[in-house]
Amino acid sequence: MSLTVVGSIAFDSVRTPFGERDRMLGGSAVHFSLAASFFTEVRIVGIAGDDFGDQQLAVLEGRGVVTDDIERVSGGKTFFWRGRYEYDMNVAHTDDTQLNVFAEFDPKLSENSRSSEMLFLGNIQPELQRRVRAACRHAEFTALDSMNFWLENEREVLKSAIAEVDCLLLNDAEIRELTGESNLARAARAAMEMGPGVIVAKRGEYGAALFSRDEFFAIPGYLLEDVRDPTGAGDSFAGGFLGYLDGRRAAGESVLDHAVLRQAMAHGSVLASFNVEDFGTERVASLTREAIDQRLRDFRRITHFEAEPAPAP
Amino acid sequence: MSLTVVGSIAFDSVRTPFGERDRMLGGSAVHFSLAASFFTEVRIVGIAGDDFGDQQLAVLEGRGVVTDDIERVSGGKTFFWRGRYEYDMNVAHTDDTQLNVFAEFDPKLSENSRSSEMLFLGNIQPELQRRVRAACRHAEFTALDSMNFWLENEREVLKSAIAEVDCLLLNDAEIRELTGESNLARAARAAMEMGPGVIVAKRGEYGAALFSRDEFFAIPGYLLEDVRDPTGAGDSFAGGFLGYLDGRRAAGESVLDHAVLRQAMAHGSVLASFNVEDFGTERVASLTREAIDQRLRDFRRITHFEAEPAPAP
Repeated sequence: MSLTVVGSIAFDSVRTPFGERDRMLGGSAVHFSLAASFFTEVRIVGIAGDDFGDQQLAVLEGRGVVTDDIERVSGGKTFFWRGRYEYDMNVAHTDDTQLNVFAEFDPKLSENSRSSEMLFLGNIQPELQRRVRAACRHAEFTALDSMNFWLENEREVLKSAIAEVDCLLLNDAEIRELTGESNLARAARAAMEMGPGVIVAKRGEYGAALFSRDEFFAIPGYLLEDVRDPTGAGDSFAGGFLGYLDGRRAAGESVLDHAVLRQAMAHGSVLASFNVEDFGTERVASLTREAIDQRLRDFRRITHFEAEPAPAP
Repeated sequence: MSLTVVGSIAFDSVRTPFGERDRMLGGSAVHFSLAASFFTEVRIVGIAGDDFGDQQLAVLEGRGVVTDDIERVSGGKTFFWRGRYEYDMNVAHTDDTQLNVFAEFDPKLSENSRSSEMLFLGNIQPELQRRVRAACRHAEFTALDSMNFWLENEREVLKSAIAEVDCLLLNDAEIRELTGESNLARAARAAMEMGPGVIVAKRGEYGAALFSRDEFFAIPGYLLEDVRDPTGAGDSFAGGFLGYLDGRRAAGESVLDHAVLRQAMAHGSVLASFNVEDFGTERVASLTREAIDQRLRDFRRITHFEAEPAPAP
């Protein structure tokens, strides 16, 4: 079993009401990889500068992530993002973005990365997403994330990229923007018309919703008293979701089975909840499967109810 | 078993992207009563003008609601609200508010209303809430709703009213405003310090969360493709929640039992989901228990997952 992810590798400087950190390891592909690594072999495809060194590689490799397809540009600098969150941690304020080597990213996939059964196209230029999708001919299940920038500037290419994947993961506001439908359930149906059979709407602290051809599923966010840094939560959600799916797929099950999809959504939520408990990758990189399984049981307990009818009045 | 509710009785004129209606029956006590009427005997306490007539009474009495304590002011006019919703139906825009007889509301409770085992203090002036609370000496479980207006203008009286009830139901933004805590879980703990052992945070289309001394519970909103008019959804949630609790209480169970509270949250969500499917009280007033029980089963199906661990990678 294996899962290839393409996306950004970054250094993030983040300030929240609970502290600040300078130049932490980050980026969508990094957060995704760490979260998914608890369930399957992850192969990361990305680009970094020569400020990305052994210390950063060790975080990924310490979780068994295959880093052979991280291109290191000699003399180049890694993508850098500086941002902050006010007390409403649902909204990130960007103070600085330096694309650096990421501006010239042209994903190069080894035979190993091409051969994965699962593929996650993180938020990069949609034409590059299409090229990576085409290269991974054996992928049995492919998913794509994007952002409002591509929706607004490369809408047609993005729609072509969306048409070529099995699963679309976006923030709920982005699904509404993509389709022009204000109602999320209708927006998800409209997105499905574009091609993917599975639509996942990420809703920040409110959780996530999943729509397939004949079913839907909603899950609240895991309620935490301590949220230190929400950066990367959506990518950790995607990593937990797809990593878990690949584990079940490799065990011979269908990733389109509703029960499996629901469990994958729960795993994504659990990984996202760990992500936000500390800055950057600190919490997820040091997690254990035991801690994940324990929180999953807690999560199930605090979301479940029996459909016991009330006595008649 | 019986549940007394005090709150507003209104005529609402509402415009949404899906139509408009003029002078529909509305108000927090009305929406609450109709939703709760499926589970227990409801006694409504409110005030109306002589524009409130047999047609409006018939809607309530058709659902078995006891209307003896609706005071009709001869020559007076009923509370009137005119509002509209844009495509984001989470936000109501008020175009006109005429308090009319509601400005002079001084709740008068018959012995029957005073003797209920459960009490819901809908969103009215907090000093009036305190007076009604004191009058209902036999109430075993009491709950209170409020709004930002009272938070900002009668904060200390409101805090006294909150201290005297068992359950506080507010929008999540209001719980944050009440406590000055941006994190919902911390805000709920802080609200609990004020007195109530149960805090329910209403989160609009995103569902609701419940906090008790030693547990919490989160439920997503029921996802609907057709949302016509969200007016009254929070009151229908409260009615479904407390009505169901009273039914279980009368059957000899503890309303503080976690499993019962969770089922009550699910019933509240189901009633709120019906509320928004049509204008005003149209959908809830014509519901059946069969339709409620069916949606409850659907809701359970689309929110449940098994905590099955993934195979090890």
